[in-house]
Amino acid sequence: MHQPRSPAEQVRDRALAESKAHEYVRELCDSVGPRLAGTAGDGMAVAWAKAKMVAIGLSNVRTEAVAVVHWERGRESGEVTSPAKQALALSALGGSVATPEQGIESEIVEIKSLADVDALPVDALRGKIAFFNQPMERTRDGAGYGRVSPIRQSGASKAAAQGAVGMLMRSLSTAENRLPHTGAMRYEEGAPKIPAAALSLPDADLLQRLLVTGHPVRVHFTLGCRSFPEANSANVVGEIVGQDKPDEVLLIGAHLDSWDLATGALDDGVGVGMVLEVGRLIGQMHPHPRRTVRIVLFSNEEHGLSGAHAYARTHESELERHVAALELDHGTGKAYGIAYLGGPTAAPVIEEAWFPLQALGLPRPTSPTRGGADLIPMHPAGVPLLTVQQDGTQYFDIHHSADDTYDKVDPAAMSQTVAVAAALVYGLADAEKDLGRVPLDQRPKTR
Amino acid sequence: MHQPRSPAEQVRDRALAESKAHEYVRELCDSVGPRLAGTAGDGMAVAWAKAKMVAIGLSNVRTEAVAVVHWERGRESGEVTSPAKQALALSALGGSVATPEQGIESEIVEIKSLADVDALPVDALRGKIAFFNQPMERTRDGAGYGRVSPIRQSGASKAAAQGAVGMLMRSLSTAENRLPHTGAMRYEEGAPKIPAAALSLPDADLLQRLLVTGHPVRVHFTLGCRSFPEANSANVVGEIVGQDKPDEVLLIGAHLDSWDLATGALDDGVGVGMVLEVGRLIGQMHPHPRRTVRIVLFSNEEHGLSGAHAYARTHESELERHVAALELDHGTGKAYGIAYLGGPTAAPVIEEAWFPLQALGLPRPTSPTRGGADLIPMHPAGVPLLTVQQDGTQYFDIHHSADDTYDKVDPAAMSQTVAVAAALVYGLADAEKDLGRVPLDQRPKTR
Repeated sequence: MHQPRSPAEQVRDRALAESKAHEYVRELCDSVGPRLAGTAGDGMAVAWAKAKMVAIGLSNVRTEAVAVVHWERGRESGEVTSPAKQALALSALGGSVATPEQGIESEIVEIKSLADVDALPVDALRGKIAFFNQPMERTRDGAGYGRVSPIRQSGASKAAAQGAVGMLMRSLSTAENRLPHTGAMRYEEGAPKIPAAALSLPDADLLQRLLVTGHPVRVHFTLGCRSFPEANSANVVGEIVGQDKPDEVLLIGAHLDSWDLATGALDDGVGVGMVLEVGRLIGQMHPHPRRTVRIVLFSNEEHGLSGAHAYARTHESELERHVAALELDHGTGKAYGIAYLGGPTAAPVIEEAWFPLQALGLPRPTSPTRGGADLIPMHPAGVPLLTVQQDGTQYFDIHHSADDTYDKVDPAAMSQTVAVAAALVYGLADAEKDLGRVPLDQRPKTR
Repeated sequence: MHQPRSPAEQVRDRALAESKAHEYVRELCDSVGPRLAGTAGDGMAVAWAKAKMVAIGLSNVRTEAVAVVHWERGRESGEVTSPAKQALALSALGGSVATPEQGIESEIVEIKSLADVDALPVDALRGKIAFFNQPMERTRDGAGYGRVSPIRQSGASKAAAQGAVGMLMRSLSTAENRLPHTGAMRYEEGAPKIPAAALSLPDADLLQRLLVTGHPVRVHFTLGCRSFPEANSANVVGEIVGQDKPDEVLLIGAHLDSWDLATGALDDGVGVGMVLEVGRLIGQMHPHPRRTVRIVLFSNEEHGLSGAHAYARTHESELERHVAALELDHGTGKAYGIAYLGGPTAAPVIEEAWFPLQALGLPRPTSPTRGGADLIPMHPAGVPLLTVQQDGTQYFDIHHSADDTYDKVDPAAMSQTVAVAAALVYGLADAEKDLGRVPLDQRPKTR
């Protein structure tokens, strides 16, 4: 007996057969390119995304204004000046101040962790360049990145408070090539703002080897980055309006912005491509699911989560009717599981939605999850969170570096992830019951 | 019964137990760094090598003057200007002329091979930028590189003869990252000298994707390279003087120069480190082998083989007493075999020298070989050629790029290669018979 396929199974199979997600990424990368918040590419990306949502048949397509920081990189260079002259491959961290035009030059002091800064003797960093040299572990789920990313966020201010004049760090990267990985940093109130940059792993290795000899190691570097006045950007939103409960929203998002060193193919072009394709595929299903599926392409995730905050503010009164939220922002790897965070009776609901995904080899959904970064501002409202777990083993070879280009995209793995996300979203948007609300004591704590 | 080990076995086992080859590479990379012919690093490398030969106990340590080209890179940048602006990662080919200060900008025309240039319609390249887009095959023995390297050598002049104003090429690389691979090019007489650069593979892929859309693709690039007057460099030579036949020479060499984008750890720092270690280990054997083992660190292999030509000229009268020559210039990979080219009765001689290498898993030596590039000027004299075959599967991920840094060095694989080279060199230098001379009709033809 051949069972008729459920709508969720149909949408899954159409994703596997005909996903266009990789085509959308290619278009975004090749026709827009880098799209760091506030830059010309950011505006081009918003226009592209809006037109694409219309083209694939979404309803209520609109932009929602977001004010964003605007920072640009400019020229940058570095070198060891002593014991012997050696070029260094480095990139300013996002938000760094510039050096003086002639650069800064000083002895470096190696530090492993943020905690080590406090353990240093008084004045050990005074007038020096702090060199954070903590390796990052390769993991499937990205946990290795989470463990070291506070160094990038806070290392400069921590070191500056102890008198350091500059901050260099081993890139948060698993790739052994000469491409540095950038990413956001933040100056803390009260500490001097010192220039901060990431070194490629081979360059960090070089400094480490030179330090082992016991001779002072001096480095010179120049950053030409600039901060501009706040700029206008936008979240781009489109919907498949629910058949029965149009006011209840299942949100699926990705972030539209990228870092400036490359075209952001994996971070987060693939996410953009995949959520658009989920939207297209679900939009073609008749009937539509009971609840509204809302596609949100967030502005400026990378440099301050301003799109996410703006979304939560703009839709504050509506968040109680957000029945779940899912963000795809973990690269091009194949989906291997689902994680969720919901109310006390969420398990049977998510398991029913998981049913069509067993055929793709996905194990029973696990809980909890923190969800994607753009969902953080929804945590206080108790919105249930979903994660499609993608294999990120290779992701941090590429992430935030000049290597984040379209040739790294894996169309077949993307199709699988689209199939998982589409079936899951369809299933939950169409389910009789919902996931409840995340109880107050179980909501993720902001790190 | 325990057989006493032969001297070749002893030198093999000492190499495996205590090779310092990787330490020499590290010193060269970290204290000298890039050492392109004619630059300050070139002179520093010569001084370093001479001091190192003395320190490890070689005899007759000397420099032999070599006049070299002197070319420097300067600033370089590139971008797609149409259909959409996109940055391109590129590096000038060694020897290229500069662009005008404002760069050149034109439509690109994709070409697969040198032969295709002749097949183009008249004027297809006139005023255009020729874009050679031939992928390179990954091979263990480097044959993939040999097949495509004529594009780098001659592509610019071939295209210029058809009216092209610039030449871009897909890097001769097997690495899918944004690091371009440089290398020597040569202008032919009669054709205009046009600027020439290599693109990283992802950038070549981008141009290829853009061309597929059928719209004209325009590129702008700027090269700030400069040629300077001929400079002074030197081959660095040291010996272990033969016990019985000091006038007969077994040459083992590597090249001391590197490209400028990195520290030349694999090309050819490891070769330098390994031949120095072979020298140290053989020098410590008593008695020394019958014939003289001569260690030669060639100047400027990369940009015109000028050290090799100078050596052959300086030692012209002595080449008939060069009983064999071996160059190590294929990276850090493990030795998997021996190839040779000798006279009609060479086989039993090389097989006896191979005997102690069976224990390392090396199969019976094969013939012929062309030997290393620095041995080319010795071909006309019929000098027997040796090759220690090293696994080069990963070599062209790194070769000639900014990624050629010490962290890529594999000390264990180097020890194995040192063991093979040291036992082979000792064996042949101490053998009763020699490899004869390469018959006239079997000498490699210069490509």
